[in-house]
Amino acid sequence: MGHVSTADRGHMARALRLARRGLYTTHPNPRVGCVLVAGDGRVVGEGYHRRAGEAHAEVNALADAGEQARGATAYVTLEPCSHTGRTGPCAKALIEAGVARVVIAMQDPNPQVSGRGVALLENAGIAVTLGLLETDARALNPGFIARMAAGRPYVRLKMAMSLDGRTAMASGESQWITGPCARGEVQRLRARSSAVLSGVASVIQDNSRLTVRADQLGLDNADDVARRQPLRVIVDSRLRLPLAAACLAEPGRTLVVAVPGHEAKRRAALEAAGAEVVTLAAGADGRVDLAALMAHLADTEAVNELLVETGATLAGAMLDAGQVDALWLFMAPTLLGAKARGAFALPGLERMADQYRLEIDDIRAVGGDFRIIARPRVTGVPAYTKVP
Amino acid sequence: MGHVSTADRGHMARALRLARRGLYTTHPNPRVGCVLVAGDGRVVGEGYHRRAGEAHAEVNALADAGEQARGATAYVTLEPCSHTGRTGPCAKALIEAGVARVVIAMQDPNPQVSGRGVALLENAGIAVTLGLLETDARALNPGFIARMAAGRPYVRLKMAMSLDGRTAMASGESQWITGPCARGEVQRLRARSSAVLSGVASVIQDNSRLTVRADQLGLDNADDVARRQPLRVIVDSRLRLPLAAACLAEPGRTLVVAVPGHEAKRRAALEAAGAEVVTLAAGADGRVDLAALMAHLADTEAVNELLVETGATLAGAMLDAGQVDALWLFMAPTLLGAKARGAFALPGLERMADQYRLEIDDIRAVGGDFRIIARPRVTGVPAYTKVP
Repeated sequence: MGHVSTADRGHMARALRLARRGLYTTHPNPRVGCVLVAGDGRVVGEGYHRRAGEAHAEVNALADAGEQARGATAYVTLEPCSHTGRTGPCAKALIEAGVARVVIAMQDPNPQVSGRGVALLENAGIAVTLGLLETDARALNPGFIARMAAGRPYVRLKMAMSLDGRTAMASGESQWITGPCARGEVQRLRARSSAVLSGVASVIQDNSRLTVRADQLGLDNADDVARRQPLRVIVDSRLRLPLAAACLAEPGRTLVVAVPGHEAKRRAALEAAGAEVVTLAAGADGRVDLAALMAHLADTEAVNELLVETGATLAGAMLDAGQVDALWLFMAPTLLGAKARGAFALPGLERMADQYRLEIDDIRAVGGDFRIIARPRVTGVPAYTKVP
Repeated sequence: MGHVSTADRGHMARALRLARRGLYTTHPNPRVGCVLVAGDGRVVGEGYHRRAGEAHAEVNALADAGEQARGATAYVTLEPCSHTGRTGPCAKALIEAGVARVVIAMQDPNPQVSGRGVALLENAGIAVTLGLLETDARALNPGFIARMAAGRPYVRLKMAMSLDGRTAMASGESQWITGPCARGEVQRLRARSSAVLSGVASVIQDNSRLTVRADQLGLDNADDVARRQPLRVIVDSRLRLPLAAACLAEPGRTLVVAVPGHEAKRRAALEAAGAEVVTLAAGADGRVDLAALMAHLADTEAVNELLVETGATLAGAMLDAGQVDALWLFMAPTLLGAKARGAFALPGLERMADQYRLEIDDIRAVGGDFRIIARPRVTGVPAYTKVP
């Protein structure tokens, strides 16, 4: 990537911290930060992308720097765009502002535009350094990267469970296994996700709302964050969702995903109750094909990060289908016993040799509970999903 | 406890480290260490108790010091004994050697002799300091303390399980969920225990040997340690243990615990095959009363630490009976699915309000697996069991 100084690393680290400020709000755009540094080492401008429709990080940083941008070095966490979107190409803005050098953490993951921003800059005589703190930059946008590079979301499967792997009593009673800290963290997981996915059985059992609640986020900008409710996606092959389901009355959209063959009348009733219904091809088992659903969410709904919060059957089916990038397990220090409900239905698993092996990325305390982040050890999932 | 110096603490910490050398070999005696320090601060003698029938820690330290014991301070991790056992009272030996001061970490937990050693020393004009690093001293001998103070062993319940709380496939296949590091640690847990307890169903399923294998201990003194096999205790209410069970052919004793009403012929056959059979009262469910079993093991077999390695039914029954002091859960980063066998059968647990709450003492990596040590949050178990 060419010569990189300690100062370069420090400025890029700052740009990454700025980008993180958009963690909960940039959907469907990536989180991006930018720092402008004058020849004498002074930071003359900072910016980040806050929300789709608002200015990109580079434009915000250039506005912050004004005339001091001339001759400066720009540190950007993602390759500046070369296309005229809602805000005009950032690469052009950097050229026109007269920056002398651009340091970029990672290339645009969209194969159709990747490298074009760099080319624009270099053609204008600007020195470009690529790949500084790239791993950190990729970790900021696992969903955007997955969608652009593979046409699917980055999927987190969250499960709250007891130490003996139970998510509910035999009766279905499950509130609450984990404590308020863990539940707050789940709220933040929802808030950073483009969509939250659940199965209709779970939604019926818990009358789930699947919403982000500002008062449970524990964030300084909670009200701003909760303005955008993640898309609620309910896998409901046979359109069983009750018309009075609580989630249908919440702000934001509810997407009910069915297979062909359901009643038009039922569909109309659900739509009248506030749901949007889409029909996707059925898999071999007659249920919604989960790979097709992931592609649909990426392509049609621009879902970057997807949070799966559901029961054992759909959770197991998502694992079985190789559609899970990371498991987020919140474990409470309690036992519920062998009659209570299991966490993952994996019907094809009969022998130890078939066990579903994971890599543990992190274990830490979350309030009185603990959290395990793990990844499937072997799946068809490409290497870019190696970030939690 | 009177004035204690930094040097006092340092010498007692050394005595505790010496005591720990007997961790795997002192059964049924406690682990005890002793350091003798001259008036000028020089360590003049060290000793620990290695094995029942051999010298106590104080006697070893006095022998090490010889004439230099006169006027020295003795640091002992447990109150010196006052009775004439196999080796003569240690309090008397310290007096006769002319030590000037004795620092003791903890009193003898046997209420019938507790304080007598101190009284002997004080009556001989020796200054006694009591209670230095007492918590550490108690942690060394949780089983000896439980047996002396409460007439029962200190009970560890070990379980090897998947992240979703499964201990075996539906078929019973279970080898191996955890890796060699975790299995080595289980070997060391067996080796420090006076006895290992299992249910007959588990023993039949796995043809368990329940032995300590020197080559799997990972200890410098592995051969010495493996000379003593922990007592194997098999809960077998109806005497179903096969005469060809592997454990009956192993070195060491196998105690089969039945309820009244079994066939004398079957009992005789098992005894001929190498088992010792004891009959204990049945509980309300017709099975061996577990509290009575614990009392029997403490009183008759001098069991200090008991390691329970068994299936979901007996494990759950031990928990239900309030007979577990600590759970040692070895979790492998793998999923076995909801059809696989659960870890703890807790038949009475129907509602979330009844959940079996635990306190987590420790979570750490053990090879590719991780280990959780937890204690029941509320049981009838007294406070002395707060050590893992």
